Amino acid sequence: MATHKLLLLPGDGIGPEIMTEVKKIISWFNARGGDSFETEDGLVGGCAYDAHGKSISEEDMARAMAADAVIFGAVGGPKWDGVPYDVRPEAGLLRLRKDMELFANLRPAICYPALADASSLKREVIEGLDILILRELTGGVYFGEPKTITDLGNGQKRAIDTQVYDTYEIERIARAAFELARTRGNKVTSMEKRNVMKSGVLWHEVVTATHKNGYEDVQLEHMLADAGGMQLVRWPKQFDVIVTDNLFGDMLSDVAAMLTGSLGMLPSASLGAPDARTGKRKALYEPVHGSAPDIAGTGAANPIAMIASFAMALRYSFEKGADADLLDRAIAGTLDKGLRTKDIASPGTTVVGTAAMGDAIVAEL
Amino acid sequence: MATHKLLLLPGDGIGPEIMTEVKKIISWFNARGGDSFETEDGLVGGCAYDAHGKSISEEDMARAMAADAVIFGAVGGPKWDGVPYDVRPEAGLLRLRKDMELFANLRPAICYPALADASSLKREVIEGLDILILRELTGGVYFGEPKTITDLGNGQKRAIDTQVYDTYEIERIARAAFELARTRGNKVTSMEKRNVMKSGVLWHEVVTATHKNGYEDVQLEHMLADAGGMQLVRWPKQFDVIVTDNLFGDMLSDVAAMLTGSLGMLPSASLGAPDARTGKRKALYEPVHGSAPDIAGTGAANPIAMIASFAMALRYSFEKGADADLLDRAIAGTLDKGLRTKDIASPGTTVVGTAAMGDAIVAEL
Ligand SMILES: CC(C)[C@H](C(=O)O)[C@@H](O)C(=O)O
Ligand SMILES: CC(C)[C@H](C(=O)O)[C@@H](O)C(=O)O
Repeated sequence: MATHKLLLLPGDGIGPEIMTEVKKIISWFNARGGDSFETEDGLVGGCAYDAHGKSISEEDMARAMAADAVIFGAVGGPKWDGVPYDVRPEAGLLRLRKDMELFANLRPAICYPALADASSLKREVIEGLDILILRELTGGVYFGEPKTITDLGNGQKRAIDTQVYDTYEIERIARAAFELARTRGNKVTSMEKRNVMKSGVLWHEVVTATHKNGYEDVQLEHMLADAGGMQLVRWPKQFDVIVTDNLFGDMLSDVAAMLTGSLGMLPSASLGAPDARTGKRKALYEPVHGSAPDIAGTGAANPIAMIASFAMALRYSFEKGADADLLDRAIAGTLDKGLRTKDIASPGTTVVGTAAMGDAIVAEL
Repeated sequence: MATHKLLLLPGDGIGPEIMTEVKKIISWFNARGGDSFETEDGLVGGCAYDAHGKSISEEDMARAMAADAVIFGAVGGPKWDGVPYDVRPEAGLLRLRKDMELFANLRPAICYPALADASSLKREVIEGLDILILRELTGGVYFGEPKTITDLGNGQKRAIDTQVYDTYEIERIARAAFELARTRGNKVTSMEKRNVMKSGVLWHEVVTATHKNGYEDVQLEHMLADAGGMQLVRWPKQFDVIVTDNLFGDMLSDVAAMLTGSLGMLPSASLGAPDARTGKRKALYEPVHGSAPDIAGTGAANPIAMIASFAMALRYSFEKGADADLLDRAIAGTLDKGLRTKDIASPGTTVVGTAAMGDAIVAEL
């Protein structure tokens, strides 16, 4: 019986509330027996800044590097709008992604049948939707240098951000896309703007070459990212796995998440490369939604995306696909009983708070 | 009676077919009397490359600079996938935008009532939608240097694109946004990613300062661009004018256009600053849709976006708001009669080809 070490980083806003519900799920698995989970709590984001003037401490960074998986809530809020750029809440998340080398960000966009009517899209457009956006997470304009604001005098400033991609970065995310596609619909759509960006030209070239090099059984298609955004809105079911860069992935995965009508429900996994010696990957799991400071503390937050993120941890970090399925079914079962948090409520359903939703999912387990 | 000089650049794919219909409209206005329009034809995109190895010739660039307005179709297609980067079809369009200093790109996203059901969104979400995306068009990652691919040896290449914004570039587009908002719903939403990009930090700072400096009567709101993409899908009617940078504007305006169900209907205007002496602005008008090489030559293309782009020229280049309204009403009237091109057909409507649609709009005038 293995013991897995989890670092819990609830963060800001609704983060701590929804993390409380994940802890109930973890306790359930520990009580059941089999592998067990040891948890530690840490600070990231605005709360870390408040505590020690940085968006994540060196101690917590070291614990993240040593953990078998990091379970992350959400960061940011208007309270920290004025803090210096380098220690803003998001910097903590970005440092975790970069230092842990979590290059592969898996963002499933799934339409839960019980919620098909919650979408602004027509039911037939999104019913049964199950696509996966694979976003490159450690490169591109998020981390490229120079990244500066310079005073030019005369009241003029110049801001510069740099999009940088090397062949190996594109190749490893392309491989991940093809491998994931094989476990699903066997189709990859690669999105970039090669008609405007040199990084798009290289992206297209490397994805095409990687495909030829051992993945020709997977169907590959290329789409310009703007056209891809359109096609996501027009007919999202045409896609299986979408692979794209850090910034396009940020935009496109948010659009895709909103299409499903299930934003409060969607988890994500950020994975590193397998360790050469142990085969283990560093990993961080977080909901796709943000810290929702407007409803923080009201007990109205939806904990499902956070709990579903733990299900992804079971699947991708601990090879416990059956337990992940069990947890996913408990979520679906709770929805089938008509329980809803406020964000996903519809006529005829029963509105419950964060804690009651967590308890109901535990009961369903 | 003034004579206005138009340069017509049909471009590739369906470009020439839809430009033919605009010529019918121009002839109608010339025959009616009043101001008249003189037209010249030029080449841009793949057809220009085929003719003289460049995506636009120096002669046509000079004619564009001298024209009172440029009417542009669309460029690109698989035929030119292999041409060198510097002379690819899109380079002609980008050079026109840059050399003419067309920094303000107006992209209305309007839901034509007759087409509300053509959208993948629910009718109530988009019925009556009328928003304007104002995209900065001469800066950002489209034009910033360095923009290179370097061979690093060892089979590795590095691609670099550079996002650059100066204060004055942000200030002039912010002013344009506030001024446009005053003629509409009096609200501006500025979108950037200041939590990740230095250009977003400067964008936010300059838009805020410009607002304080003479535009406080206009409501200003800031949104992160990824959240903005989500909100566009969730409830687009919350917006009036959205102002954003070149790349976010590319993505967001395409998503917005697709929401309306009226992609083949949407025009755009790209405007420069008023000339210090004459007060005239350089201007280019083009449909939001692309060159649609798959249907080129079949007579099925929808000419309405192209014709509506000429209506924008009447409004923004020639101060002929009444004529623009007349033309917009002729388009709406033709739709009300049930005529549709294939892309916007629905049960109970009459499908017509490109030429018949153009003729019907002329008849309606
Ligand atoms: C919080 C922010 C830095 C982050 C990003 O831009 O990557 C978020 O939007 C996300 O998508 O995870
Ligand atoms: C054709 C291409 C260069 C262009 C762009 O990216 O600006 C197009 O997508 C647009 O939106 O006008």
